[in-house]
Amino acid sequence: MSRFLDKRLSSLKAYIPGEQPKLGEFIKLNTNEFPYPPAKCVFESASKAVENMNLYSDLTCKELKERFKDVFGYGGNNVIFTNGSDDALYLCFLTFCGEDCGAAFADITYGFYSVYADLCCVDKQIIPLNDVFAINHADYFGLNKTIFIANPNAPTGKRLSNNQIEEILINNRDNIVVIDEAYTAFSGESCVELLPKYDNLVIVGTFSKSRGMAGARLGYIITSEDIASDLEKVKFSINPYNVNSLTQAVGTTVLENNDYYVECINEICKTRDKFSEELVKLGFDVIPSKANFVFAKHNSISGKYIFEELKKRKILIRRFDKERIDEYLRISIGTPEQMQIVINALAEIVGGIK
Amino acid sequence: MSRFLDKRLSSLKAYIPGEQPKLGEFIKLNTNEFPYPPAKCVFESASKAVENMNLYSDLTCKELKERFKDVFGYGGNNVIFTNGSDDALYLCFLTFCGEDCGAAFADITYGFYSVYADLCCVDKQIIPLNDVFAINHADYFGLNKTIFIANPNAPTGKRLSNNQIEEILINNRDNIVVIDEAYTAFSGESCVELLPKYDNLVIVGTFSKSRGMAGARLGYIITSEDIASDLEKVKFSINPYNVNSLTQAVGTTVLENNDYYVECINEICKTRDKFSEELVKLGFDVIPSKANFVFAKHNSISGKYIFEELKKRKILIRRFDKERIDEYLRISIGTPEQMQIVINALAEIVGGIK
Repeated sequence: MSRFLDKRLSSLKAYIPGEQPKLGEFIKLNTNEFPYPPAKCVFESASKAVENMNLYSDLTCKELKERFKDVFGYGGNNVIFTNGSDDALYLCFLTFCGEDCGAAFADITYGFYSVYADLCCVDKQIIPLNDVFAINHADYFGLNKTIFIANPNAPTGKRLSNNQIEEILINNRDNIVVIDEAYTAFSGESCVELLPKYDNLVIVGTFSKSRGMAGARLGYIITSEDIASDLEKVKFSINPYNVNSLTQAVGTTVLENNDYYVECINEICKTRDKFSEELVKLGFDVIPSKANFVFAKHNSISGKYIFEELKKRKILIRRFDKERIDEYLRISIGTPEQMQIVINALAEIVGGIK
Repeated sequence: MSRFLDKRLSSLKAYIPGEQPKLGEFIKLNTNEFPYPPAKCVFESASKAVENMNLYSDLTCKELKERFKDVFGYGGNNVIFTNGSDDALYLCFLTFCGEDCGAAFADITYGFYSVYADLCCVDKQIIPLNDVFAINHADYFGLNKTIFIANPNAPTGKRLSNNQIEEILINNRDNIVVIDEAYTAFSGESCVELLPKYDNLVIVGTFSKSRGMAGARLGYIITSEDIASDLEKVKFSINPYNVNSLTQAVGTTVLENNDYYVECINEICKTRDKFSEELVKLGFDVIPSKANFVFAKHNSISGKYIFEELKKRKILIRRFDKERIDEYLRISIGTPEQMQIVINALAEIVGGIK
């Protein structure tokens, strides 16, 4: 720490991202990345975008927005693109939390909510998941806070129904409810259908998990025009060119090839369900997942041990050294071949102990 | 404005970027972009980066940092990369300004400093340039503020010498001095040589102006390891993956081809000096520029009129509707051919009035 750091940040703890080991060394199942190659024309689109990269990127993301509307049903003044969805979540904290309005979120959820609350110096109300790691949606009624819910939740993979979200919206008419749909593509459902009815709903999403663009960074916000205009003002006060032109080009092409990605998503869901069954056979308690990962613990062997044994075998998964979930392992869903290797390794580890 | 916007932001005025018209319609000399094509291998490097864009980008920007060190002499724990240099400047405001330490900068300088001060709710001390639009460096002694100086300054193109910067550093031992070197490549000099002597110096730079990457967004900070660790903590609390993998790949290749860019920079400086001479012949007062633009006003014809006449002729330059400088025009330096077209148009406009 330097002697110049502003006082209010002196105790700030940054988010700790999953490890990013050198490629090729590991089967990397620790950050919920998309396991398939990009659609073929994406290569050309990136290379073509280099031609004009000397010019500032399109502030309005016009083309990207048009293709986005084709796929997601919203565009125009309802959509804002961001440098990954972390950028979108930060914008929401900055714009809608403050001295008068803190933030509320679950005890076990995406770790960045707490970091943003601290960074923005806003009061946080942390609401425990219930005994089976579910969000009790009634806990979120009438909080007078800006609410952040990952749906499906991470790292549990559990999902609130749209009816439950609607009840949260109804019971927080004067506060923003941010639904973070990073993993929603793997749940077969989005709460976007609620947008026309509720002016307090903000949906955040990402191209990282279901569109294979974690490295290219593309996030989005879908909301009412009024809320979007507030968010855009703040975005234009931080970094108007936050989405670079290569990412815009690549994102546009990805959306043009949506069928390919939907096929991959279906494949990932199938692999997830089969992998979950195999885990159960090996003695794991598996939380039924609506995301591209599973969250599971073994009924007799410690999470830390399994994590380390997998790492020795060059398989990287995620474990959170955090109360309530430190016995659990979060395993991203890769290709069927990768998951078979994991199952074989786990059988060996579990068998070795027994 | 929605009813949810946090109170402290209700009067915030966002930065207004230069227009980004559709390509091909205009000779675009309004946002100081690089007028030459990228080095040839950059195309391949972008396309190759798409292969792994399903994986999160390298948080440490390892390869980029190594090539950066080859060119700029600093790497390792002294350098932080950002999503354009706006992102870098915002990080500096967030990390080193606060309730106890406001920000100080010139009245006529990069417009974002004032926006960031307002966004971060910090006190701002605005210091007028002198009569000939120069920074009087002694005005910055002992301010007890975090100081932001664009050097060369925008939109004037004037530069403080390294001796003058050193005096500012000496006279603000307990405060950070941020030197924004966005345009320094066109001045033949950087204050990076002062880094080993002063632990309060922060240098911000960009690949937008001199490396043709405005659209790809790559900024950087060079500073002491202590200060860099503070900035990195805040960066990791906002958006650890702020520099996407396509930009990292492209930036690495750009640095590998540094000779080409240095050649282009020299060409731009030559064009700038010749263009300035031509402007003088047409009756303009031209501030001698150390950047890739000139700032000039005509001795009898209004800036607004010339701006509009150029726009009619599909030449886009920048004019700021701001006290003291509203008669001035800021014209980016393009290729020799583009600048000849501008001179011809100006001759016509000036001749038409006379």
